[in-house]
Amino acid sequence: MKFPKKVRICEVGPRDGFQSVVQWIETSDKIEVVKRLFEAGVDLMEVTSFVSPKAIPQMQDAAEVVQSLKGTPYIGKAFALVPNKKGADRAVENGINRLAVVISASEAHNMSNVRKTPAQSLKELSEIRKAYPQIHIKLSLATAFGCPFEGEVPMERVQEVVDGAVTLGIHDICLCDTIGVAVPTQVSRIVAELKLNHPQIDWSLHLHNTRGLAAANTVAALEEGIDRFETAAGGLGGCPFAPGASGNMATEDMVYLLDELGIVTGVNVNKVIAATEFMTSRTGCSGDSKINSVTIHKIFQGRGAV
Amino acid sequence: MKFPKKVRICEVGPRDGFQSVVQWIETSDKIEVVKRLFEAGVDLMEVTSFVSPKAIPQMQDAAEVVQSLKGTPYIGKAFALVPNKKGADRAVENGINRLAVVISASEAHNMSNVRKTPAQSLKELSEIRKAYPQIHIKLSLATAFGCPFEGEVPMERVQEVVDGAVTLGIHDICLCDTIGVAVPTQVSRIVAELKLNHPQIDWSLHLHNTRGLAAANTVAALEEGIDRFETAAGGLGGCPFAPGASGNMATEDMVYLLDELGIVTGVNVNKVIAATEFMTSRTGCSGDSKINSVTIHKIFQGRGAV
Repeated sequence: MKFPKKVRICEVGPRDGFQSVVQWIETSDKIEVVKRLFEAGVDLMEVTSFVSPKAIPQMQDAAEVVQSLKGTPYIGKAFALVPNKKGADRAVENGINRLAVVISASEAHNMSNVRKTPAQSLKELSEIRKAYPQIHIKLSLATAFGCPFEGEVPMERVQEVVDGAVTLGIHDICLCDTIGVAVPTQVSRIVAELKLNHPQIDWSLHLHNTRGLAAANTVAALEEGIDRFETAAGGLGGCPFAPGASGNMATEDMVYLLDELGIVTGVNVNKVIAATEFMTSRTGCSGDSKINSVTIHKIFQGRGAV
Repeated sequence: MKFPKKVRICEVGPRDGFQSVVQWIETSDKIEVVKRLFEAGVDLMEVTSFVSPKAIPQMQDAAEVVQSLKGTPYIGKAFALVPNKKGADRAVENGINRLAVVISASEAHNMSNVRKTPAQSLKELSEIRKAYPQIHIKLSLATAFGCPFEGEVPMERVQEVVDGAVTLGIHDICLCDTIGVAVPTQVSRIVAELKLNHPQIDWSLHLHNTRGLAAANTVAALEEGIDRFETAAGGLGGCPFAPGASGNMATEDMVYLLDELGIVTGVNVNKVIAATEFMTSRTGCSGDSKINSVTIHKIFQGRGAV
């Protein structure tokens, strides 16, 4: 097994995690979670999303979350997810330097998400690119490994959106397994093909653990040279418009795995565990991580306890 | 990725799963679960263990469970786990044809389990082998990837028990990640080394998902040619003498993964899911499987539901 020496982690819990929580989370708690996760050492973070407050009420405090980062080194590492130009405008107005623009490879999912075809979303991506040439833009390519409405997504659909984004000068593309249906052989095949066609792109993966294969898919991606992953502290998360999409790969599970494989991340797993504990105690939301303050230890003290 | 074309599943839920359940499970329910899991198509099953009823009261009905299989084709596929000669005697008396003799690679775990050193347990294995030359014996090599008391287990300790068993004419060895600490690179390394030294052995793996890596470890083992795995319906389980060892790799998660990889198992995943649902509804014990009657479907009916 041959892996990259170093992997970057993009934390998405404050966006992909919180957006699926129905019960209101206090803005001050969101800001504290963002701060603690940056302090744990993640390279990048999706801190919120600028979406319709009607569609996702939980994200209505996006501006306050972003503004809390002003004057800190974290603002340069913060992404906001936006589904359209209007969201991009609000994000940039509030000081965001990095946009994650989401487009689904499958038409049915993109229609369900933003009521546009992928081609129409690409046109909107073009407008965002033109309006903000100085802003870093990542394409979050949803349903790249399967769609909850259409099932298998033909590779041509994935290629079309990728090609469209590449034409617009996007260099940062994240392949998202929105509903957790990817399997290791598929990850190897799709990643290898895309990397071959577009070696200049900074590829990353966003995996959900819905069917228990996020770690196995991670290893398959590492073997193909992927060195950037999106994960959510506590394994929170799920797309509100993709039924059954619960459970991002947990950040602590990812960091534990990478630590064990001898891959450098710069992330302190104990600080992620502490951030998750704070988050679950304050927000009442529970995730699906395997690594916690008990399982992080492999040796048990006190044999009497057995 | 190169995998075996066919994989055999040894179900261990009725043994490794039930033994960790404190609340009494009715013998008739145990027998029904065993029957349903055989009907789902598993090749082999650990149906119970002949251990001290004082140590593990849940297994006190081992004789009745085994006797329920008499006159059925399943008796030939049924293993009983035994920790010593006394257990082997009881198992064989009751009609068992396959014994799983458990020995830990780490001394501290073996002492905790059976109050013997691994060398003393090998001597007992020798007695069992001599007493029952006609009985199929599997060595269940516990703590092969790590020990809850000693931490890392040197490869020499693993080799010693393997060599001892091979000398006794054992051809069936299962490497058990008793507390779920194995990582894919370690699995590749240990399996490759053992297979190289003992190519005549029918190797299998028994993985726990304590740290979320059972599926990733499975893929690593498949790549090394392992074609037999021990799993527990519902992801139940854990060694009662290995703290934190909760969660066997779930049979339905394994079969789903193998199905997706195009590997033949002969197991009907829907029947395993149904057996798990029966088991959890009747026994009150809940496991840790990701695949269930919802997640087995990748396409969601009715978009209105989002």
